[in-house]
This record gives sequence, structure tokens and C-alpha cells, in this order.
Amino acid sequence: MNRTRLDDRLADLDADGYLLDASQEDANQLYLSGFTGPDPFLTLYADGEVHLLVSGLEYGRATTEAAADTVQRHADYDYEYGGREERNDMYAAFVREKGVDSVSMPPRGPVGTADALREREIDVFVDGDDRLQEVRAVKTDEEIDAIREAQKANEAAMRAAEELIAGAEVAGEDAPADGDVEPGVLLRDGEPLTSERVTEEIEVTLLRHGCALDETIVAGGAQAADPHDRGSGPLRANEAVIVDIFPRSKATKYNADMTRTFCVGEPGEILREWYDLTERALEAALDAVEPGATGEDVHAAACEVYESAGEPTFRTDPETETGFIHSTGHGIGLDVHESPRLASGGEELEPGHVITVEPGLYDPEVGGVRIEDLVVVTEDGYDNLTDYPVRFAAE
Amino acid sequence: MNRTRLDDRLADLDADGYLLDASQEDANQLYLSGFTGPDPFLTLYADGEVHLLVSGLEYGRATTEAAADTVQRHADYDYEYGGREERNDMYAAFVREKGVDSVSMPPRGPVGTADALREREIDVFVDGDDRLQEVRAVKTDEEIDAIREAQKANEAAMRAAEELIAGAEVAGEDAPADGDVEPGVLLRDGEPLTSERVTEEIEVTLLRHGCALDETIVAGGAQAADPHDRGSGPLRANEAVIVDIFPRSKATKYNADMTRTFCVGEPGEILREWYDLTERALEAALDAVEPGATGEDVHAAACEVYESAGEPTFRTDPETETGFIHSTGHGIGLDVHESPRLASGGEELEPGHVITVEPGLYDPEVGGVRIEDLVVVTEDGYDNLTDYPVRFAAE
Repeated sequence: MNRTRLDDRLADLDADGYLLDASQEDANQLYLSGFTGPDPFLTLYADGEVHLLVSGLEYGRATTEAAADTVQRHADYDYEYGGREERNDMYAAFVREKGVDSVSMPPRGPVGTADALREREIDVFVDGDDRLQEVRAVKTDEEIDAIREAQKANEAAMRAAEELIAGAEVAGEDAPADGDVEPGVLLRDGEPLTSERVTEEIEVTLLRHGCALDETIVAGGAQAADPHDRGSGPLRANEAVIVDIFPRSKATKYNADMTRTFCVGEPGEILREWYDLTERALEAALDAVEPGATGEDVHAAACEVYESAGEPTFRTDPETETGFIHSTGHGIGLDVHESPRLASGGEELEPGHVITVEPGLYDPEVGGVRIEDLVVVTEDGYDNLTDYPVRFAAE
Repeated sequence: MNRTRLDDRLADLDADGYLLDASQEDANQLYLSGFTGPDPFLTLYADGEVHLLVSGLEYGRATTEAAADTVQRHADYDYEYGGREERNDMYAAFVREKGVDSVSMPPRGPVGTADALREREIDVFVDGDDRLQEVRAVKTDEEIDAIREAQKANEAAMRAAEELIAGAEVAGEDAPADGDVEPGVLLRDGEPLTSERVTEEIEVTLLRHGCALDETIVAGGAQAADPHDRGSGPLRANEAVIVDIFPRSKATKYNADMTRTFCVGEPGEILREWYDLTERALEAALDAVEPGATGEDVHAAACEVYESAGEPTFRTDPETETGFIHSTGHGIGLDVHESPRLASGGEELEPGHVITVEPGLYDPEVGGVRIEDLVVVTEDGYDNLTDYPVRFAAE
């Protein structure tokens, strides 16, 4: 945790304290408490100290594992599991006991707790800037190492996926197509190679490398034209297959992210042109990454490559459903998506920001192409944390 | 989704609508919208209809996949990615356009959105009862089937774990102990069998059966005495090893849950007694499961077995750190932990409730024992959704 930056950013709060009510699912909570509690618990930052309130079940582990100055448990407030009003009374007592009469909460903090504290005459303000997310955006060397480690697992998983795709036979060419299998379908061991099969291979590889996973994308053909379609069913030759992997290290909880697009056989002329354009958009965007540039600048660099080739973007047509229909990238850390944004209005880049750069083109009639690297902003540019070839033909 | 129950429970709201602002990570959102959006989006229930507001990136998929009556996108409100106030203006316009001037939000809805709507003169009330969670608690036959399927994957994973443990050699008995390996450590292929190795086997098995996973627990010895310790390092003979697996079906998003405790070698007298007691507590609790009984009744049945054997529980000592130090179980569905609670104050059971029953005993000096089955409450008792033997000696 970047404690100096934390103290700095929270020092000028308009409230006496900063309050989180969340489980480890919430990256702010994980960051500030340093504790992996599966159920929601309270973390209060006040006067430079971090205070935790957890259930009896978590107490033992919290006292040894949390990055907190004090840890208390429900029994300290004679609270028994269950009663809603009693729980809110306990929360108010916990806050007030630390000399705190007003708190800031992040925008996604629970309204139930906020209103309950207000009823108990503790002022609650929404921290619209989400300061903890701003603190989290700039990584320490240790955090960068954690992300780099997760990206190494990602590289192994991408390798496994690419090999599976590259080694496929094509029904009707290398192997007979019959009534059950259409010509052009990719085959492994005589069976259609499906998105699900490649996903399984990726996820098993990630597990073997100490990573958990959320929702891997292996999408071919028209499915690849929807950037959030995870893909299903048989993959086919001459189509673009988007493989987007975002593992999370089980040990550190930090995420990585990478996308490659592969083709077996002969992509058509448009797909080939899209791949070249997207590779150029990636390079242009990466060239724009440096401290002082904004996320909007980097996004603009990618958009310009596409726009000058006549491809629609959200800048030229906010309602377009084809072309470059997402932002150029996002910060990554304890969340897969966090600050800064590489998009219109995206904030200024600082050394220590870890960001994805991931231009792409989409059209259900053609398919989808996306290439994504993960980089860290340095004093004079960036370091690419991704060590994986950019190539369309699967090898 | 239990639409009748939903309409019924939301019909007498004190507000014009019910509003969710959450991603698919939120079970209420997944339930009401039927949509797996990775980033937060709005779902408004009003006049018996479900309305979604999603980003352009999600729009195509939402129109085909969501269980919604209408789907709109940000561009319909001329909103461009980024501006906070503009986003809140869009949210208010979306709500008001549906004829809604006041909304209920669940207790864990985001305070940022609640306060922003209030500033725009839309009343926001906290639904302290979390009605959607109450609706979700009673499962349809389809939901029960989904949970049963996930439990089948769980059984395969438990089988893989038990075989790995049962097939271990013991250093200093079956195989030599040397400077690196202490006597009593379990060995596979000459290497210490670790919690991490067993967890990996479990999770790979779950993936092969179409399930994702969160945090599997494989904890032996003193680690097992902390119910939320996931376990790490070598497992040992003559100790109790708790294996707690909670997979989530990737297809349906429904969870399952099961715990077994295994021992290789000779457990001491106390551990043996604890295992018998816990098996009796499980049976007593299961016997108490029927419609009309409360979660508190079921919890009491388990507690009484332990208390009459002189073991501390939270009922006899709220601050105890040894004995039976958690509730007897919880509802399960789209969340691993949901209504009803089998604990002090736990609500009345209804047919269709799917619950875990999981008594256990803990003491760092002795270890931990927990046995957990997953059952559905029926008209006249319960059906056990768990098909796995209860035995201490791993086979």
C-alpha cells in the first residue's frame, strides 16, 4: 500500500474519517484494510490510523493478517448476530468512539449504512472523487511486481490457448466433414474445438500458475464482434478468434490482462486489414503513453489511426455499433477495471499507473480483432509488462 | 426467477419503483435483470416491468440476454463516458421517464447514486428488509436443479481431494523423513502434500465440471481451527483436515457448498469425539429442518448437542474463540451466503429455501472439525442435495 500517498490524499478530507463497509470483493477495502474478509466488515481511517470492526469469526485472522492499527469484534459491542438496528447502533458507536462525528464514504459504499449513521447523527458525505481509487491507481514497486507475476501466468495461459488453436485440423480440409461437423470447423482429436474447450485449457493453466480467474473470453466469428461476449461453441478456420484473459493472483489479489487475436487458415482481406490497423493503433497508443499525457490523449492516438482509415469510433459516432466501440484501456490493480481511464475525459497519467492498451475493431458481418498489452507508466514513458508475440496466424 | 413472488413482494413498496445500480457481482442485480454485465448498470422495477440502462458496449448483448421489458443505453441520453454529474443526470432522467418519483434501493446499493438522485428530487428509501433477497431465498424447481448440478461438480471435486489425501504416504512411516521433511508430513510422489496442492486438484476438477470457484478451504491442524483460514503448507497424519468447497456454475451462476473433514492415520481421542459429536449435531440440525421451524430452531438443535457435551457455543459464551463458533448454516443461491440464516434470530423456513447445515468444533490446540450438507426445505421436511459419504478416515 502506498501509505504516504494515502495519508496525503485523505489528509484534507472534509470529514473526520473515511469509512468503508465492504468485503474483500471491494478493492478499496482490500487495499485499506489489508484483510481478506469474505463478509462485509468496517474499516475506518481516522487521524492516520486504520481501525477494523469484524465478526467474531474473523477476529483471530484479522488480528494477525490485517494491515490495521486496531481490530475490534462485534462482541466488544455486545452485538449478537442478526438485529439490524442493533448492528447500526454498533457501527455508530464504533465510529464515534474513535472521536469521529463525520465520515466520507466512497460513491459505491452502502446507502443502508450511510443513512443509518445519519439517523444516529453522524454526518456522511459521498467522496465523489473516490480518493482511495486515486491512491490505488499509482502502484508501488511491490504492486507492479505482483501484476507482472500475474501477467506471467497469463502468458503461459495464452501460450496454451494458442497452441490448442494452432494445432487444430480443419474439417473438410485436413479431416473429413460429416453430417455432424460443418466444413471449416476446427477439430482436435476429431472433435470440434470449442470456445469452452480453449477456455478450460486457459483456466486450468492459470490455476496451475497460482491464479484465479473470472470470465475468460474466447470468441470467434460474429461472437468476437461483441467485446463482452465470452464465446461458445465450435471455432472455425478463416475467422478471427479473440482470446482475452484476465487472471488474478490468488496470493496477491492483483490482476493482469492481455488480449490476442488468432486465425487458423486464411483471413479475408478485411480481417487482415483490421489486424494491421489494430496493430498500428496499439503502437500509436503506446507511443502516446508518458507522464503528463492524459488518458484522452492515448485514446485519441488509437482513434486517429482508425478514423483516418475510415473506421467509425465513439468519437465520430457515439451510437455506432461497429468500428472501435470501446475505450482504449483502463487502469488495473486489485480491480480489473480501475483508474485511470484511457477514454474521452481520461485523467493525466502518472508514473506508477498500470494500464491496459487495447484497441479493437468489431462488426458482426466481419468479426472482431483486439490486441491488448499491459504497461506501467514510468518517468519517461512506459515499460511493457507483456511478453507475448503479436501475430494473427496462430503458431 | 420467481416472478409471482417478486411481483407480490414488491407490490406494496412505499416507493414508485425499486432501483438497482450494480454489476453482475451483485446477486440481486443478476436475479432481477437476468443480465451478466461486468460493470455496474441500472435496473428499475416499476409497475411490474423491468427496465435496464446499460453502456453502449453492453447494449447488444443486453437486448438479447437480459430478462428485461425494456433496455436502453447511455447514448439514448446523449451521455458520453466519464462525467459524474452528467451520469447522475442521466440516471435521474431514466428513472423519471418511467413515471417514477421515488425509489427503494437495497441496503447495499451505492450511496453515491442514492444521494445524487435525492439532489435531483427523487426520493430514495432504503429497503432494510432487502426484499429481493427475500424473494431470492425461495427457489424455483429450476433454481434447485441448478444448485443440485453445482453440488454434483462439488462431489467430484471432493472425491478428487479425498483420494489425494487418502493415497498419501506418511513421512517417517511409509517413507523416510529427512532433513527437509518432518516425520508425520503427508507425501505424494515423495513430495509433501500441501493444502495448495489439494486445492489445485479440487479447482481443476471444478473447472472440468463447468464450475468457477472462489476460495476453497483445505486446512489441517491448527489452521483448521480458524473456520475462514484457507490453509497453506504441508498436511500431516493424525490431524483433522477440513475440506470446504463452494463452486459456482459458470452457466447458471448458482452456487453449491459442502464440507468434509478427513484424517490419515490415528486421530487422537478428542478429535475422534469431536467428529462423532459433529456428526450428531449435523443429524440433530437436519432433523429440525421443516417448514415453520425457524433458522434459530435448527441452530439450537446443533448447539444443544455440543452444549450437552460441555463444548462452548456462541449461545453460552459470545466471546468464546473455541467450540462451536459460527452459525449452523445459511441460505445459498446466486450468493454463497444469503437468506435464511440458521442462527440466533434466524427466520422461519419455507419450502424452496436451500440451506447449508454445517456444525463444527474448533480449538487451535486440537484442530477443527466441520461437516456440511446442502439441503432444500420441502413441504414436509427436506431433501438432501448432497451425495457424499460422511467419514473421518479418508478412503
